[in-house]
Amino acid sequence: MTTRVIVLNGGSSSGKSGIARCLQAVLPEPWLTLGVDTLIDAIPAGVAEGIEFAPDGGVSVGSGFQRLEDAWMTGVAAMVRAGARVVIDDAFLGGAASQQRWRDALNGLEVLWVGVRCDGAVAAGREMARGDRVAGMAEAQADVVHRGVAYDLEVDTTEREALVCAREIAARVE
Amino acid sequence: MTTRVIVLNGGSSSGKSGIARCLQAVLPEPWLTLGVDTLIDAIPAGVAEGIEFAPDGGVSVGSGFQRLEDAWMTGVAAMVRAGARVVIDDAFLGGAASQQRWRDALNGLEVLWVGVRCDGAVAAGREMARGDRVAGMAEAQADVVHRGVAYDLEVDTTEREALVCAREIAARVE
Amino acid sequence: MTTRVIVLNGGSSSGKSGIARCLQAVLPEPWLTLGVDTLIDAIPAGVAEGIEFAPDGGVSVGSGFQRLEDAWMTGVAAMVRAGARVVIDDAFLGGAASQQRWRDALNGLEVLWVGVRCDGAVAAGREMARGDRVAGMAEAQADVVHRGVAYDLEVDTTEREALVCAREIAARVE
Amino acid sequence: MTTRVIVLNGGSSSGKSGIARCLQAVLPEPWLTLGVDTLIDAIPAGVAEGIEFAPDGGVSVGSGFQRLEDAWMTGVAAMVRAGARVVIDDAFLGGAASQQRWRDALNGLEVLWVGVRCDGAVAAGREMARGDRVAGMAEAQADVVHRGVAYDLEVDTTEREALVCAREIAARVE
Repeated sequence: MTTRVIVLNGGSSSGKSGIARCLQAVLPEPWLTLGVDTLIDAIPAGVAEGIEFAPDGGVSVGSGFQRLEDAWMTGVAAMVRAGARVVIDDAFLGGAASQQRWRDALNGLEVLWVGVRCDGAVAAGREMARGDRVAGMAEAQADVVHRGVAYDLEVDTTEREALVCAREIAARVE
Repeated sequence: MTTRVIVLNGGSSSGKSGIARCLQAVLPEPWLTLGVDTLIDAIPAGVAEGIEFAPDGGVSVGSGFQRLEDAWMTGVAAMVRAGARVVIDDAFLGGAASQQRWRDALNGLEVLWVGVRCDGAVAAGREMARGDRVAGMAEAQADVVHRGVAYDLEVDTTEREALVCAREIAARVE
Repeated sequence: MTTRVIVLNGGSSSGKSGIARCLQAVLPEPWLTLGVDTLIDAIPAGVAEGIEFAPDGGVSVGSGFQRLEDAWMTGVAAMVRAGARVVIDDAFLGGAASQQRWRDALNGLEVLWVGVRCDGAVAAGREMARGDRVAGMAEAQADVVHRGVAYDLEVDTTEREALVCAREIAARVE
Repeated sequence: MTTRVIVLNGGSSSGKSGIARCLQAVLPEPWLTLGVDTLIDAIPAGVAEGIEFAPDGGVSVGSGFQRLEDAWMTGVAAMVRAGARVVIDDAFLGGAASQQRWRDALNGLEVLWVGVRCDGAVAAGREMARGDRVAGMAEAQADVVHRGVAYDLEVDTTEREALVCAREIAARVE
């Protein structure tokens, strides 16, 4: 069965988006990349304000956001069923429960589950170098997003380039 | 029947995105805004390069883009069926044929079709003021995108503010 | 004496940046545009955090910011003395006192002082349509930035396009 | 004598901007970061179009750009003389000749010259991961920008994080 969905799960500043762009470049077929950032751009400012960034880098989302996210997940799955190949770039703030929500939405589809690890201190340094993220998110999310999550493959960007990780992932796409 | 989809169709720099943001602010329920720009951000660079911007501001897209767009349309419709309210921000480069593609995807849903007009010369001036678009697109698309398209409502940003137009549209949402 | 500096002063979302881009397009010589946003991008996050956005849209800056801004103003004036033509895009939060700081820096240079007016409610609507500014700044700054400021020319974007305003300004450049 | 200017020179995607942001965070005093990207944002579209990106990643600039750049350099030096500390983030496309232009502008100031190296193939991979640069620039500039340039210190981002490089540089600031 052909892989049509790649789910990249990792903390903020772990390098998921860079890996996604490299995957789009190295995979022979065209793949869409859709992520939680795509959804956040699409939601109204009022709901986005329901997303809270705590001083320690924690993030909590309101129930309004979760309802929109459920519909979003259903829609992304429908794009795949309609023939698109999709890289999903997400941070499972709810760990295993977040994975279950995607499992339900993607039911029946061939998914490659990829964990994107990065040492928390290194990710925090990259967050500082980027300069466009709330400070503390990288460190706070580094481990939390992987709790109880099952993967087909894990990559670690601490000492490996995004392109190298993308090639490892691409080799697993059937 | 409750309106769950608003389609805004207008040329580049006609003010669609501003109206969409105002709609999100003035409508009592949360609405997602998804547009052709969302899709273009999601596609791989190689397919994006298939989108050609002619010196006269014309835009042509390859068949690879159209296939991804079909899947995208199906997915956006699925989000609505799953409970989301969605503002679609698009430029119907194919006129009536583009509308038909959305009609097929949104089949059975209550849609408010809105034409966003703007005088070509005024839109060209706004394109210059924005400074982030290929020069000539505003003028080239001003009329073309409306050819043969049927609307429930038309607004004109030539002399009206985005917020005023958004309020007119919101008044028609049931 | 040849005009080598145009200072555009107006509140947030009054349309200064759009006028500046149109000026660059309509003026026959190349002009640099440098604004308070250029400076804010250049300062470290720690100092930027000293800039406070009050819930009512007010903005206050710390003394650390003011010292950097003084050096910045001196440098911009030096660019002009070295032969560059410069459009300065600013919001005089201190009214006449802000103008005096620029007068001191630009001492001896031929400056065209331009007030960019926009009705507060209209600017607030445009702020909503842009979606990338702290809500309330447009309304809060609409009048304050003009207090006690003397102009060679005033333009009003409430009912006039940026390009039209730019042409009025360009006609005054000698 | 106190260091008041740090010049970071390196090719596209070598990691200069990330190092600059980390320097702003780790250095105890506030430092401005001004780079060639700041200048490119400030110039009119017509002059920017004089900057040519060749298919092989090469970049050539017109004489109009060079004149504006000379005035810009003079102004940046004046900011330092007026009391600002400045990190200059540049790519010396002209090698030693580019350095000489900065030497002339910064005459009499205490400058820390830093070479930012990155293996060309690694930089090309990061360019792909960023997705917002013309492909080929990283590889084309990797060596060229260092030709004949003299440094106080060189850092290499091929296997070292931006924050680690920033700390090495900060240790040399007097």
